[in-house]
Amino acid sequence: MTFGDAHGPEGQAGSETGRLESETGRVEAFSDGVLAVIITIMAFELRAPLGATGAALRARLPALLVYILSFVFIGIYWNNHHHLLRAARRVTGAVMWSNLHLLFWLSLIPVLTEWIGEDFKDTAPAVAYGVVCLGAAAAFTILTLAIIRADGRDSPVATALGRDLKGRASLVIYAAAIGLAFVSPWISYALFATVSVIWFVPDRRLSRR
Amino acid sequence: MTFGDAHGPEGQAGSETGRLESETGRVEAFSDGVLAVIITIMAFELRAPLGATGAALRARLPALLVYILSFVFIGIYWNNHHHLLRAARRVTGAVMWSNLHLLFWLSLIPVLTEWIGEDFKDTAPAVAYGVVCLGAAAAFTILTLAIIRADGRDSPVATALGRDLKGRASLVIYAAAIGLAFVSPWISYALFATVSVIWFVPDRRLSRR
Amino acid sequence: MTFGDAHGPEGQAGSETGRLESETGRVEAFSDGVLAVIITIMAFELRAPLGATGAALRARLPALLVYILSFVFIGIYWNNHHHLLRAARRVTGAVMWSNLHLLFWLSLIPVLTEWIGEDFKDTAPAVAYGVVCLGAAAAFTILTLAIIRADGRDSPVATALGRDLKGRASLVIYAAAIGLAFVSPWISYALFATVSVIWFVPDRRLSRR
Amino acid sequence: MTFGDAHGPEGQAGSETGRLESETGRVEAFSDGVLAVIITIMAFELRAPLGATGAALRARLPALLVYILSFVFIGIYWNNHHHLLRAARRVTGAVMWSNLHLLFWLSLIPVLTEWIGEDFKDTAPAVAYGVVCLGAAAAFTILTLAIIRADGRDSPVATALGRDLKGRASLVIYAAAIGLAFVSPWISYALFATVSVIWFVPDRRLSRR
Repeated sequence: MTFGDAHGPEGQAGSETGRLESETGRVEAFSDGVLAVIITIMAFELRAPLGATGAALRARLPALLVYILSFVFIGIYWNNHHHLLRAARRVTGAVMWSNLHLLFWLSLIPVLTEWIGEDFKDTAPAVAYGVVCLGAAAAFTILTLAIIRADGRDSPVATALGRDLKGRASLVIYAAAIGLAFVSPWISYALFATVSVIWFVPDRRLSRR
Repeated sequence: MTFGDAHGPEGQAGSETGRLESETGRVEAFSDGVLAVIITIMAFELRAPLGATGAALRARLPALLVYILSFVFIGIYWNNHHHLLRAARRVTGAVMWSNLHLLFWLSLIPVLTEWIGEDFKDTAPAVAYGVVCLGAAAAFTILTLAIIRADGRDSPVATALGRDLKGRASLVIYAAAIGLAFVSPWISYALFATVSVIWFVPDRRLSRR
Repeated sequence: MTFGDAHGPEGQAGSETGRLESETGRVEAFSDGVLAVIITIMAFELRAPLGATGAALRARLPALLVYILSFVFIGIYWNNHHHLLRAARRVTGAVMWSNLHLLFWLSLIPVLTEWIGEDFKDTAPAVAYGVVCLGAAAAFTILTLAIIRADGRDSPVATALGRDLKGRASLVIYAAAIGLAFVSPWISYALFATVSVIWFVPDRRLSRR
Repeated sequence: MTFGDAHGPEGQAGSETGRLESETGRVEAFSDGVLAVIITIMAFELRAPLGATGAALRARLPALLVYILSFVFIGIYWNNHHHLLRAARRVTGAVMWSNLHLLFWLSLIPVLTEWIGEDFKDTAPAVAYGVVCLGAAAAFTILTLAIIRADGRDSPVATALGRDLKGRASLVIYAAAIGLAFVSPWISYALFATVSVIWFVPDRRLSRR
């Protein structure tokens, strides 16, 4: 069957294809549910301005900008996650827990978005945001490796990803953002935005497959 | 494949139809998840009245009315979005990001609903609500154009929408609501409700297709 | 097509069956999403006890009991809604808005659950809860009628429901609960629980079909 | 049909298979929705640290650790629930309400996670957490029995589970954790973590089927 590594990738009879497809389907559906709640809760926690003046609204502007950054961040993960799961053929236990591991890091984005929205001039929130971004990027790489291990070296995911330059670049930039937050959090925010721009275009390698 | 504009609309073999359908299916599912959370969280943030008297309940009445306005607003978007995605044939990267762009604006509705519920006599919340409504209406138009560009000028969406009078009227009314909020926020609320009435009947052009 | 009453129930070719089924499917999926969020948010708003003693926990006991009442209430609606939508054949605009109307009333349950949890000895929260229950019960009846109107007098829903004694009894009991809350809110709570017991067994009429 | 025990397991014609599958499908989808919201809301209620120093972040560390514990707890339930429902063949009323009963206990995890995050050195939150874990474990066992009763003694679930040593061990360990919380809550936390490790590997009995 589909979970557990006790049985190799061979021997998947045709009658099991439907079941396998709906297997990745449920992982996608659960992940989508989590991402949909993350985006909406994050928006809600912008909180209504205190008072009803334009000044009160402007005081919430940094929080709005961080929200936009995090919204694009989650949108990119939704997009790439979607491509990755589409290209995957088998859901082993390792794939499933790698996916939950990725969702774990992404689930921390809303609370850090709220924190930066309140204390955006300080180092600690920028460092924490960078650590979570780095964790999510590493988790995505681990998920990719788990899928390749489950599907085999000649699987669509393996051949499509190749050397994964974008993924490696993201890890380096996030690490830099953590370190440079001690110089100025604004450098970190610029680096976070840079990674978003890099990933904004969906991963051609998988979508061209 | 489905994402990325690098390949034209031609060459979509029949074997890919199932995949394309489930492609729009997942965009719908994700959007539905976001809209479901928006509606529920918005309701919850009506907050329990302070104290247990009828007077405490009446003090929450404006918030309840704004909630109804926003509920209908989201309901209309759910309905029309549903028709639009049903009529769509291809999900390109542009379609996907246009859809996330629409969800971005809609995700701001709950926090503005809460703000108006608290400061409904003031100009700033009404202006902000109008800006978000205008943004959502523009995003819906952009999404429509992205789908037409992906599906071609002779696609169901393109022929069904024609000159899109309703969409244009909404944009004009929302712009007027923003300006007239500086005269009185009540004029804005009346205009928001007017647009809802216009859209309440689902879009015959697409449903008749 | 499926939305809008401009076209009669006749003329639904066989090739459209799949489309119609997924039409009710998306209404179900959206409703499920809303109900899932309602249940979870409601649980969360029990709020952690203030302090870490058994006494602090006991102080939250009424809130927990009201939560159980509301949980069963939502569970019953999920169950019956599910049976109803399964038996439905067509989703007209009237069906869709009747469904949103039902979700509107149900979306008010969490905030009232929180209110009763805090002020359970008072009349106003019990009255408000009764009004929302009555609204939801009436909305369910309206949804049933909209489906019968869309599907025809000889449709599964119409023949299965018959005279709908349970539905009528619920309306009467909720009305009584509103009035008797002015005598004592405890009578209302007993009546709310009574209706839950009546509906606990899923609707045999539809499930036997 | 599928709900209600009035009709035996025999007489399920082949044409009903599709309907039965989508029957378990909707129970899965609703449960997934609830679990997705539980995970995300729980993450969000870590709350942003008060202040922007590393010390403020460290003060939130116990809350983060409890969050990880609860995240893994919910992840394990999602995984095993998924296997169980996959192996199930029929959804009776008893199965459906057993499932809602399980979701009830799981829905209390976020508020207890928040409570422990704030008062982790005290006995009461650890006891309450243990009671909810015990309730969820018992509810999972009841759900299993309901499915076996619906599907028959020779069904996949019945033959796969056998004597259910893991399930029984969990019940015993949770009961011990409740009692030993009066000695020290840290013993309880260690026992909660132990059960998670036991269950971390997905249930081979069902996945090997």
